[in-house]
Amino acid sequence: MIQLPQRLELLTDLYELTMAASYFDNELFSPATFSLFIRKYPQDRAYFVAVGQEDVLDLLAQFQFSEDDLAFLDQTGIFSDEFLQFLKDLRFTGNVRAIPEGRIFFANEPILEISAPIIEAQIMETIVINTIHLQTMVASKAARCFHAADGRPLVDFSLRRTHGIDAGLKVARSSYIAGFTGTSNVLAGKLYGIPIFGTMAHSFISSFSDEVEAFRAFARTFPKKTLLLIDTYDTIKGAYNAITVAREMAQRGENLLGVRLDSGDLSHLSKEVRKILDESGLEDVQIFASSGLDEFEITEIIKGNGMIDAFGVGTKLGVSADAPYLDIVYKIVQYNGRPVKKLSSGKVTLAGEKQVFRKTGDDGMFIEDIVGVWGEEINDRKPLLKLVMQGGKRLEKRAPVDAIRQRFLNDFSALAPRYKRLKSPDLFPVRLSDRLQALQKDRFE
Amino acid sequence: MIQLPQRLELLTDLYELTMAASYFDNELFSPATFSLFIRKYPQDRAYFVAVGQEDVLDLLAQFQFSEDDLAFLDQTGIFSDEFLQFLKDLRFTGNVRAIPEGRIFFANEPILEISAPIIEAQIMETIVINTIHLQTMVASKAARCFHAADGRPLVDFSLRRTHGIDAGLKVARSSYIAGFTGTSNVLAGKLYGIPIFGTMAHSFISSFSDEVEAFRAFARTFPKKTLLLIDTYDTIKGAYNAITVAREMAQRGENLLGVRLDSGDLSHLSKEVRKILDESGLEDVQIFASSGLDEFEITEIIKGNGMIDAFGVGTKLGVSADAPYLDIVYKIVQYNGRPVKKLSSGKVTLAGEKQVFRKTGDDGMFIEDIVGVWGEEINDRKPLLKLVMQGGKRLEKRAPVDAIRQRFLNDFSALAPRYKRLKSPDLFPVRLSDRLQALQKDRFE
Repeated sequence: MIQLPQRLELLTDLYELTMAASYFDNELFSPATFSLFIRKYPQDRAYFVAVGQEDVLDLLAQFQFSEDDLAFLDQTGIFSDEFLQFLKDLRFTGNVRAIPEGRIFFANEPILEISAPIIEAQIMETIVINTIHLQTMVASKAARCFHAADGRPLVDFSLRRTHGIDAGLKVARSSYIAGFTGTSNVLAGKLYGIPIFGTMAHSFISSFSDEVEAFRAFARTFPKKTLLLIDTYDTIKGAYNAITVAREMAQRGENLLGVRLDSGDLSHLSKEVRKILDESGLEDVQIFASSGLDEFEITEIIKGNGMIDAFGVGTKLGVSADAPYLDIVYKIVQYNGRPVKKLSSGKVTLAGEKQVFRKTGDDGMFIEDIVGVWGEEINDRKPLLKLVMQGGKRLEKRAPVDAIRQRFLNDFSALAPRYKRLKSPDLFPVRLSDRLQALQKDRFE
Repeated sequence: MIQLPQRLELLTDLYELTMAASYFDNELFSPATFSLFIRKYPQDRAYFVAVGQEDVLDLLAQFQFSEDDLAFLDQTGIFSDEFLQFLKDLRFTGNVRAIPEGRIFFANEPILEISAPIIEAQIMETIVINTIHLQTMVASKAARCFHAADGRPLVDFSLRRTHGIDAGLKVARSSYIAGFTGTSNVLAGKLYGIPIFGTMAHSFISSFSDEVEAFRAFARTFPKKTLLLIDTYDTIKGAYNAITVAREMAQRGENLLGVRLDSGDLSHLSKEVRKILDESGLEDVQIFASSGLDEFEITEIIKGNGMIDAFGVGTKLGVSADAPYLDIVYKIVQYNGRPVKKLSSGKVTLAGEKQVFRKTGDDGMFIEDIVGVWGEEINDRKPLLKLVMQGGKRLEKRAPVDAIRQRFLNDFSALAPRYKRLKSPDLFPVRLSDRLQALQKDRFE
C-alpha cells in the first residue's frame, strides 16, 4: 500500500532527537526561543507572502509520539529508556507568535517565533521549516504571476509536476491565497473549498476520429461548461471547428464558453483566434491559455497585446522554477532568558524575541518596517506578529481560506509597484528598533 | 487537524474527470495505451534513474473512489448521476509494463506504459506523472552526487527544504536507491528501512555556556556515536576543543568518531582540521561536511584535495535545484488497436506499445538502446520493460529497497563515464527498431 503517514512526529532530522536526548541527559530544560526567518531574497524578489503557519499550529497542538514511533526509536539502539519515556509524555506546551497567513513580509523579519522548553522548541525545527518553506515560496511565486496577469484570472495547473502529493495540495492552497482564482486539483478543491477548473487534454481529441467529433462529444456532455482545446492538430483549423460546434450549440440555445490554447506562440495565436471568433460573432467566447507559463511569459503575452482572458499556470509555479528553495532558517535567539551568542559564520541572526512594526501612509501604502522587541510599542505602527498559541493551545481557529486570501489582496494593494517589479525590484525599507539593536550588543561573547 | 489524505483518487486534475465523463457519455470504452516518458534532458544530463513505479502500482491496485469523494463530486454539480455511479464501480483492470525501479534509462524511452479501457488509463495521468516525476528527478540528481563523491558516503539532509512532507520521504528513498548511504529523515528510516544519521546543530552548541561544555555533554550522552560540529564559533578552535574532548573520551576508553564542518571553505578548512587532528594522533577521527553541497561543490572539494570522509547533501538534492522539473509526459499512443494520430505541436510521441532493448558489451558496459515494439525480439539485446501488472493485479511484490539500490549500482557501473560527466556529457545512443519506425508511418493522418 501507498504509505501516507498519519502522524508526523518522526518526520524530522535525526539530530533533533539526538540533541534532545543530550539536553535531557544533561538536564537542560530551560525555555528557549527559536525564530523562523528568510535570510535573503532569491534573485529579483523583494517580498514574501506568509503561508503555512496554520499547518504548523495544528502540528504543534497534536504533537505526540505514538507507541509505534517509540518502538521504532527504541530498536535503533540510539536512545535510553529514560529518554524514550520522556518522549512518550512529551507534548508541545509553548507559545507561538506568527505573522498571519496571507500577509506580506520581508527578508530577515521573523515569520514565526516559538518559545518553549528547549527540547520542545528544538524538536520542531525540521517540520516547521518544511511546512512554511514550501507554502511561502509558492505563494510568493504565485503573487508574481498575479501581479503580471494584471487582473486576468489565473488557475493552478501544476499538480502533475509538483514535488509529490503534499506539494500538490499545498501549491493549490498557497497560490489561491496569493490571488489565483482556482486550481485543477480536485482534492484541493474538496479539502480547502477552492474553486476547481478543467476541461480536456489533447488525448481526448486524439481518441475521436476527428477534432470536430471530439468537440461535439464534449459539448453534448457539458452543454453549459464547454471550453474547447483547439491546438491538437492546427490551431486555426481548430478555431474554425470550434465555431462549427458553437453554431450547433447556439441552435440548441447553448453557449460555447471558450477555447484553450496550449502550445505555440500564444500571443500571436490568441490574436488570430480572437479575430476569427469575432468575425463569426463569437465575441463572448473567451480565450484561455496554458503551456509553460510563468510571470515572465504572462508579461510578454500582455505586452504583445495577446488576447488572452485567463491563464493556466503549471509546472513553473508548482516548483517555483526560478527559485525552487528559499534561504529559510530556524535559529535559537534566546536561551534561559539570555540573548544567544553571536556565531562565527558571518550570517546574522537577530537575538531576542521580536516583533515587526509596519508604518502605513495616509494613502494606505506600506512605508517602512521596523523589527523591534516583542512587547515594545512604536508610535503610529502596527505590529505584524500575533500571539497565536499559548501554553500549547491555539488561541484562534483556522481562518477561512477566503479571509486569508483577502488579507493577501489587501496587503498586495498596499505594496507599491516598485517593490513588485519582476526584474530588479526596489528593496522595501526594514530597520531595527533601538531596543532591538541594544539587545544585540548585550549578547554575551 | 493537519490533513493527510488517505485516499488519492481525487488527487487529479479536474479535466481527467470531465474527459472521463464525456467518454462515458459518448460510449468510448475501448482500450487505450498511454506512455510515460521524458521528452528531453535538463541541461548537462544524459541519463535518468527510474524510481516511483512501485508507488504507481500500489495506487492503481487500490484505486477506488470513496463515498466521500463521490459526494464531493456530486455537489460540484458538474457530473451526472449515471457517471457518478460508474465512478463508484470503477477499478483499474488494465496492464502495466514498466522499467524496474533503480534502472537507468534515457530520454524518449517509455518508463511505463498503461493499457486499459480509455477511462481507466486516462484518469490515472495526473497521479502517475506526479508519482514518478519527483522520484526519478531526485534519483537522477542523487546519482550525479554519487558519481561526484567517488566512493565517499553521502547522506540525505534535505528534509527541511523539500517541497512538503511527501517529497521529504520520497527524496530519502530515491537518493538511497541512487547510491546514498542514508538519510537524516527518521520517518523515512522507519518506513523504508533506510539507515538514519544525525548528531547536532549549532543551536545545541549555543545552548551551553561554551563549546567544550557542549561537546562534553554530547559525548556523555552518546559515548559510542560522538560526532562533533566544530564550526559554531571558530572552526580551528572548535577542532582543538574536539581534541580536548577526544582525549577525555580516550581516558574513559571511548573514541571520538568524527567532526563536522558546516560553513566556510570546506576544502581548505578540512585540510587544516585534518592536520590538527593528525598531529594529535587522531588519524581515525573522520571529517564530515555539509553546507549547500551538490555534485558540483563535491567535485570542487575533491579536486582541491579536501580531506572530507563523508558528505551531507541537503537542499540542492532535495529540490533538484538546477533542474527542479523534468519534461515528463503521459501521452496516448494507441486507441482501440490503432496507433494514435500525429499531433501538430512538433513534439514527437512514439505511437504504439513499446519495449526498450539494451545492448551490453562483453565487458558488461552498456552500448546502445533500441526502442522497439512490445513483443518483438532483437538479437543479443535484453528488454528493459517488464509486465508488472495484468488485469489490475500486481504480478510481483515490491522488491526490497536494497535490491532496487543494487540494480542502480549495477546499471551505474555499466554506464561509461562519458555519459556521467557533470558538464556536457555525451548522449547515449538510442535508436528506433525498424518495426517501430514502420508503425509511425502507419498512423492515420
